[in-house]
Formats: sequence, structure tokens, C-alpha cells
Amino acid sequence: MVTKAYGATAADKPLQPMDIERREAGAHDVVIDIAYCGVCHSDLHQVRAEWDGTLYPCVPGHEIVGHVRAVGSEVTRFAVGDMVGVGCMVDSCQSCPSCREGLEQYCTGTGFVGTYNGPTPDAPGHTLGGYSQSIVVDDKFVLKIRHPEEQLAAVAPLLCAGITTYSPLKHWGAGPGKKVGVVGIGGLGHMGIKIAHALGAHVVAFTTSEAKREDAKKLGADDVLNSRNAEELEAHAGSFDMILNTVAASHDLDQFTGLLKRDGSLVLVGVPEHAHPSPSVGTLIFGRRSIAGSLIGGIAETQEMLDFCAEHEVTAEIEMIRMDEIEQAYDRMQRSDVKYRFVIDNATLAA
Amino acid sequence: MVTKAYGATAADKPLQPMDIERREAGAHDVVIDIAYCGVCHSDLHQVRAEWDGTLYPCVPGHEIVGHVRAVGSEVTRFAVGDMVGVGCMVDSCQSCPSCREGLEQYCTGTGFVGTYNGPTPDAPGHTLGGYSQSIVVDDKFVLKIRHPEEQLAAVAPLLCAGITTYSPLKHWGAGPGKKVGVVGIGGLGHMGIKIAHALGAHVVAFTTSEAKREDAKKLGADDVLNSRNAEELEAHAGSFDMILNTVAASHDLDQFTGLLKRDGSLVLVGVPEHAHPSPSVGTLIFGRRSIAGSLIGGIAETQEMLDFCAEHEVTAEIEMIRMDEIEQAYDRMQRSDVKYRFVIDNATLAA
Repeated sequence: MVTKAYGATAADKPLQPMDIERREAGAHDVVIDIAYCGVCHSDLHQVRAEWDGTLYPCVPGHEIVGHVRAVGSEVTRFAVGDMVGVGCMVDSCQSCPSCREGLEQYCTGTGFVGTYNGPTPDAPGHTLGGYSQSIVVDDKFVLKIRHPEEQLAAVAPLLCAGITTYSPLKHWGAGPGKKVGVVGIGGLGHMGIKIAHALGAHVVAFTTSEAKREDAKKLGADDVLNSRNAEELEAHAGSFDMILNTVAASHDLDQFTGLLKRDGSLVLVGVPEHAHPSPSVGTLIFGRRSIAGSLIGGIAETQEMLDFCAEHEVTAEIEMIRMDEIEQAYDRMQRSDVKYRFVIDNATLAA
Repeated sequence: MVTKAYGATAADKPLQPMDIERREAGAHDVVIDIAYCGVCHSDLHQVRAEWDGTLYPCVPGHEIVGHVRAVGSEVTRFAVGDMVGVGCMVDSCQSCPSCREGLEQYCTGTGFVGTYNGPTPDAPGHTLGGYSQSIVVDDKFVLKIRHPEEQLAAVAPLLCAGITTYSPLKHWGAGPGKKVGVVGIGGLGHMGIKIAHALGAHVVAFTTSEAKREDAKKLGADDVLNSRNAEELEAHAGSFDMILNTVAASHDLDQFTGLLKRDGSLVLVGVPEHAHPSPSVGTLIFGRRSIAGSLIGGIAETQEMLDFCAEHEVTAEIEMIRMDEIEQAYDRMQRSDVKYRFVIDNATLAA
């Protein structure tokens, strides 16, 4: 089954139109007509081989939403026409302790199979993502979307940015009575603010940009601190239950660990290209504080997040682009010139 | 009340005999004849002003054991002759959230008052520690010792080395069915091994010294790994529930975080003089792992630890010294030439 896509044939080549193969639907497969696909920073990193291991042709995209076109004979949870989503994973071993607990993102068997650039027996030997007209995915990795149809494009970023923030917020107990910080107001951070607010936490956004103060409040922050203003931070020393840090650029972590209460956690969701300055051990010891990491979320938790967001009317703030605008979108993303997530209108692939 | 002590009058002066004042016992005070005092690395750091803020004269010592000589009119829990201990703290605000939870070591009111070099209205304006014949301590900070009398000297190191390892082992759930690592087999580490073993965990000791392999097993380690042998470590990748890291010297933390299971914690109890190399964020993220810190333990937990150790016949491995051998002991401690804790026989102060 041939489908139109956008991908790169090499690290130094721009994305360009290409035809790709999708496998014939097996008994457990769901064939999805992709309506929209969010644009994640990791798309850019991987398509340009800024991380190790990119396989070409590379078709990025793991914030996929659309409608079911067809289902395999054993598929019972989905029907033709359903609104569905696919996030960062399309398979995992299903038998390791993490998979058995529904935490496929930490699969220690085969490791999870990424929605693109992951191993697969299908042509061309690695998975191809959501910058395409359709995708075929095992039903275990397909999510139901219960938002209103007209919000579908703004739901796409939930599949990565949403779950990447929801999972640690839930795991570290964000909710009523808790003071939660969110560092960075970008694709991930703006979802973190919205979700933490919807969870009932007192939300404090950290930004280095005065211009984002009002925006952060509109997103749901109760308070906004400029992390370049030491005095402003000092007033909040020792007061946070958790701080979700979405900034991948190398920066001083101590200014945030020092704001944590006893037993508080600074949770990192971005891998910096250059290491952060080594964090102060004393700040951890004198407060039993932690620095932790968190990776997306499991499939069951992703469904829970989607349902939670539908119930609380949470979607991403998006700027829609045509598929052929992707390179400009990448350039703008690198300058943080987007509020807050680009989403591709995959219908423009047909043109 | 004058008592003989050993202390330093300046950072560059050796410890020497001196007479110091102890306050008259108030209604809530316990007067303790000190029998033995353990020698902690922090004694050396502070008396030589290697950390900020040492006040002189400095009389170190916070692993204090002895017998009650007298009690104030309101003291009901202790009687003359009781075997008692005093650890790293002799006071705290008693009203902040941490104090109310029995976690005085994280007191955010006044901060806890250290057994030496802490603020006090008593002469000379800062507390003086256990390198002395007697000490007067508020009964809330006095611990009961239920070990046999003949083990008293070997109990002394429990008051700091014991609780510093017991508290994180308990907090992070060391026990039956858990695989627990202990990095460093010194004053702290040898207690960590003994206590983790007594708690029922599967204990793996990490050392850089082949010579310590057999010793670690005798202390209770089920397995011993040479942390300089990457292959040996690799075989244990992703298998530890927690790793207690007692090494304060700057070193690579990633070799240990990589050995943790999903949701595992590397817990640091030593503040390095020079920062550790910045730990890998990816290793944290791909496994939801944490790096945390832990500071001694609260008074209630210290009593629990002492009772646990009495019940499980856990004491420190010690080498007894005379008070006038303290400078040689410091020199040997700096070369890690001690198995595993020096303890001062305070009776030698009378000479």
C-alpha cells in the first residue's frame, strides 16, 4: 500500500515528498488516515542526525491523529471512522516487567519500537512516522480520542508533549495542595502548565523571557517567575513539591533544586546536547531532594491522559502548517518562534 | 562545670588538651559521662576548616556513647547509669514541618544545632562535641542504647555512620526481595552493608579495592563488584532497586545510575569537595531513575535504628584509640587506613 509522505534521504538533505510503503493490515492492525501530525523537536534532531542512529529515508512524526480507515479481523476496540491517535511507540516486547506493568516506554525486552526510526520487518526495515497520509499500527498502540472532532488538530501534540508532561506530573503527585513548577514555556512546558493546572496543583511557570509572563498565566499558571531573577526565585526557596523541567539546553539545575521542599523532585524530560553543570550534591542531601528523569508515558497512561484532557477541555496551542512548510517550521522552532506547537495539516500532502 | 576535652584553637593547629565548660543541667537536660566517641570524617573536615564556618576552639565528636551521670527535674525517660548516645544533633526548632514529622535533620526553622560547631547560648557561644569527658544534652536528643554493655564502644559509630546509612536504606525501601548496592566500604559503607543485610536485602558492595572483596562478604555483602571493572558492572545493568553511595570523592555516577532498575534511586550521602562529573540525564530519563541525597536521620529514626541494631546484633567494626592518638588517626583515615571506624576511649582524657 503506497502512501504519500515527507521525509529526508540523508542528514544534510531537506525533507521532500516521497512515496512510502505501508504494510497490508494484519489481524490486529488498524489502518489510520492521518489528519494531522504535531512537530516535535525530536523530529528535527533525528531527521538531521543530531542524535545517533538515524536511518534513511527518515519520515518523522509521532504526534499522529486521524480516523480509522480499516481494521484487521481481530480488532474489536476500533471501528472505521473512529478518531484515533498514535504517539511515540508502535510496539514493544509485551513481556518484560515494564511492559507487563503497562510502562512500554521502559521496555527492557526489545526496547520499545519508535513510531519512526524503529526496527520493523516492514519496508524499508525501519518505521516511518506521521509526516504521511496513512499509517498501519497494532491496535495495542492505538489510542481513542474523545475530544470534539473540531479539536482534532490541537489534540495531536498531546500524543508526545502531553504524555511527556502528564506522566511525571501524575507519578510525582501533582494535584490539589501541591505546588508544582514548570520550567520552560515551549511545546512541552505549555502542556505541562495546562495539565498541572487541570490536575488542581498550584502551578508556577519559570521562564527566562519576560514576554512570556502573561502568556503563562493564560495557560493556567498561578504565578510566573523569571529564572534569571535570583531575588524572585529566592522568595520561593524550599517551597515546591516538584518541578518539571522541560528545558533541554544546558543550564544550572541548582537554582531549581534549591526551590524544592524536603523530599521534592526536579524531574527532567529533556536530554541536553551538552551536559548541565554538575548539580550540587549538598542541595540534594540537605533536603532529601531528588533529580529524576521521565520518558513519555505508557499506552494505558496515554489513554488516561487523553481522556483526562477531553474531560478537562485541554488541548495544545498550535500553529497549523502545510506539509511543504516543514523546513521553515523547523527553522522557527529552533528560534523558539512558535506558540507553542506546529501541527501539520496532512491533507496538504495530497496536493 | 569544667570538663577535660581535646580540641583545636585554629585550623592549622593540632588538637590538644583543653578544659571546657558544660552548662549546669536544666530541667530537661541529661548529663552524660562520655565513655567513647567515634571519629567521623566530618570531624577532620571541620576542625581543619576544610568546610566553611568552623568556630574555634573546636571540639569535634558526634558519635557519643556513655552513661547518664545526672538528669534534670523534668527528665523521665532516663535515669542515672543508663547507657545512652548522642549523635549529630543536640537541638532543633521543634516546630517546623520537618521537626513536627520527627525529621529534625531537615529543620527549616532554626536549622538543627550540630553537636559541635552549632549555635548555643552556652560558653563559648558554639557547641563543643564528644572529644570530651562529659556533655549536657536536652533529653529529646538523647538516645537509649540497648546493646550489651561490652559492645558500647562499637555502638558509638551507629550515631552517625549507622543512621546516615539506615535512614536512606529504610526510606528507599531496602528489605527482602530488594537488590541494594553500597558504594564504598569505609566508615559509612561498612555500616550500610551490615544494615542492608540485616534489613533482609540482597546486598552488593562496590569497591575499587580488590583487597576489600573478602572483607565486604564478611560484613554481609552477598556479592562484591569492582567498580573499576566495567564488564563486572555490565552484568548487573538495570538490576538494582537502590544504590547507596557513601563515597564523597568526585567520581563517575553514571556507572551506578546505569545499574538501577526502572524507578531505582542512587542515593548520595557524601558531599564531594570537587563536583562529580555531571551525571547523564539520558540514563535518568530512560528508566525514570533518580539521584537523591540523604542527611543522617531524625531522632525517632535514630532510636529505631539503635533498637534494630541491638536486636540484630549489629555494631561497627572499630579500632580503639587513645585521645592523644587522634592526629595519627586522622592521618590514617585520610589514607583510608582504618577498618572501619576509629573510636576514642574517652577514659584516656583523664590521664
